[in-house]
Formats: sequence, structure tokens, C-alpha cells
Amino acid sequence: MKKPLHIYLAGPDVFRSEEKIKETSSSLKQVCASYGHLGHFPLDNLLQPADGNFQSQEFSFTIFRANIQLIDEADAVIANLENFRGPNVDDGTAFEIGYAFAKKKVIYGYSPTAGLSYKQLHDRFLQGIGEDYRNSLQKDFPVVEDFEGNTANLMLIGAIAGSGGKVFGSFEECVKDLNERYS
Amino acid sequence: MKKPLHIYLAGPDVFRSEEKIKETSSSLKQVCASYGHLGHFPLDNLLQPADGNFQSQEFSFTIFRANIQLIDEADAVIANLENFRGPNVDDGTAFEIGYAFAKKKVIYGYSPTAGLSYKQLHDRFLQGIGEDYRNSLQKDFPVVEDFEGNTANLMLIGAIAGSGGKVFGSFEECVKDLNERYS
Repeated sequence: MKKPLHIYLAGPDVFRSEEKIKETSSSLKQVCASYGHLGHFPLDNLLQPADGNFQSQEFSFTIFRANIQLIDEADAVIANLENFRGPNVDDGTAFEIGYAFAKKKVIYGYSPTAGLSYKQLHDRFLQGIGEDYRNSLQKDFPVVEDFEGNTANLMLIGAIAGSGGKVFGSFEECVKDLNERYS
Repeated sequence: MKKPLHIYLAGPDVFRSEEKIKETSSSLKQVCASYGHLGHFPLDNLLQPADGNFQSQEFSFTIFRANIQLIDEADAVIANLENFRGPNVDDGTAFEIGYAFAKKKVIYGYSPTAGLSYKQLHDRFLQGIGEDYRNSLQKDFPVVEDFEGNTANLMLIGAIAGSGGKVFGSFEECVKDLNERYS
């Protein structure tokens, strides 16, 4: 019998509404379970702050350490690469991809826009957003990455490819490929 | 005589105009040099693509590997945490902080808004940006982090603190502190 893989579920989903978080976490874990694997959601390890203060920096460090521990214990990371408050991957997720790459985990990414290039994503974003935003982009950071087949920043795509993972259009495709190739 | 530290200069500055990139890279390196250290900018290692195609995915992997090598060879990373196309740190920079943390580098961050919390940054951003953007935020990701003293996502701030670094309002303060404490 094959050994279940431990999969860290990275993504900005922790910033959804409480109801949506529960729904997302349980549906991602269900997909993992259907292939015989175990999904771990960032909030799984969440403790109460000892002093009852949910806004202290110390409590943020407790969450940080809990997430790092989940990644350390995981065999693979599957990251939600969808646009987060701009044409970029959530910075917390990007951090976790960097950490996981250094720790030699297999990394997968999924995004509903997986087939597009970063430049295309960016153009789409510019079209969907007001003039103010367009101006702020053009003032400070005029250069937009444009590599064939790259759905996100080259460091993220380079790490996913270099780790032996892939980018797909859906979470389930990631689990399926991971299951076929690594378990 | 003290040994010069090798400092990797992470940040979204690579997305500025060509002229601005040169200016930024040379001014950051000058500050490092004034303390006896060596700054390394992401584009320093940049090669020409063998096939002349600057947009191929293969060339993006070449840049990826060159940046990873620069971080591997560095003693410390100093990261520009300024808002990048939204109320977040550039995802490439966040990736590099994650990688550097796993590789046990000392990590510093700087941001003109270093004294603010992430929640305050977010509010400022909301005020500065059009109604479209505000709506898109409220629809998918209503939760905004709010920890005392955290200028960015808790994974980034946790890693900087955990690595022995700090967040300052300017690049030079980072170099000064790094120089005093680690050289």
C-alpha cells in the first residue's frame, strides 16, 4: 500500500470570509483524501494567544512558526496562484514557495488563468481596474515580465519547475499529477 | 580588518525604467560600499539568451538560477518591502525572503511606511485607489491582517525577525544595523 503524502495547502484562501475559509479548507482536503493523501491548511495548527491578544506581534510569530512547521513536515506544497489584490500572487504564498523550494519540497501551483502569461494577466488586470491604478503602475514600475508560458513572476515559476512540480488550471489536476508521479 | 559582507539586494526595483534601475542599483551598492560591504543586484548576473530569445521560458529559468545563486552566495538579504502594484510586497521579493530564510541568511527589510501596520497600509491603499479596486477586494478577500508593528504579511515579518534582521524606514538604516551587528 502506498504511503499517504502530506500536502501543504498554500494560498490567500486564509483571507476569505470565515464561512468561505471552512468551505475551501474542507474541499481541498477532500480532494487530497480522494487520492489517498493528507492536506494541511495553514490555519490547522492555529492556537489561541496565551494572553488573549489576537493582534500582538508575538501572536503573529506564533502563526508564522506553526506554518513553517507545517511546511517542514510536508512532502509537497500545492499553492493557489490566483491574483491577490493586484496582478500578483499573494506575498505570503510567494514566501512559502521560496521557503519550500529551499527545503526541496515538490511544489505545484494552480490558477484559473494557468494558460495565460503574466503579461496577459497584467493586461487583463489593467482593463478591469480603474484609471488611478493604471497611473500608479505607469509611474513607478513600467516594466512587466513577459515570458512565454509563465503565469506568474519568474522566481515562482522557476521554483515550481525546478522542484519537479507544474502549474495547472485546477487544484485537482495538481493532486492527480502529484499522485501519479510522486506516490 | 573586517571581512566584507555580501548583501543580496532584493526588491521590485528591477521593474523600474532602465535609467531608474541603473540609478537604484548603483546607489544601493554605494551605500553598501560606504560600510565596507558588497551589494549584489538581481540583474548583475544577467546573461544574454543563447538563442537571442529574451521571452522564452528557458531564459526566465536562466535568470531564476542566477538570482538563486546570488542569494546562495550572500551573507544577508536586504529587501525593499514597498507596495508593489497593490497593498503587498512584490511576490518575487517575497519568494526570495522565503528562500533566504530557509538558507539561514540574515534578512532585513525597508519600506518608507515602516512605522505603519499592514492594516494601516491597506487602508491607505484603499483611499488612494478607485472604487473598482475596493469592490474587488471586498468580494473575494475581506480579511486583512492586523498585527501591532507588522508592516507586511506575517510570514515576511516573522522571517525577518526570526533571521535576526529588522525592518527599517530606509535602506541605509538596514546596512548600518547589519554592519554593527554582523560584521
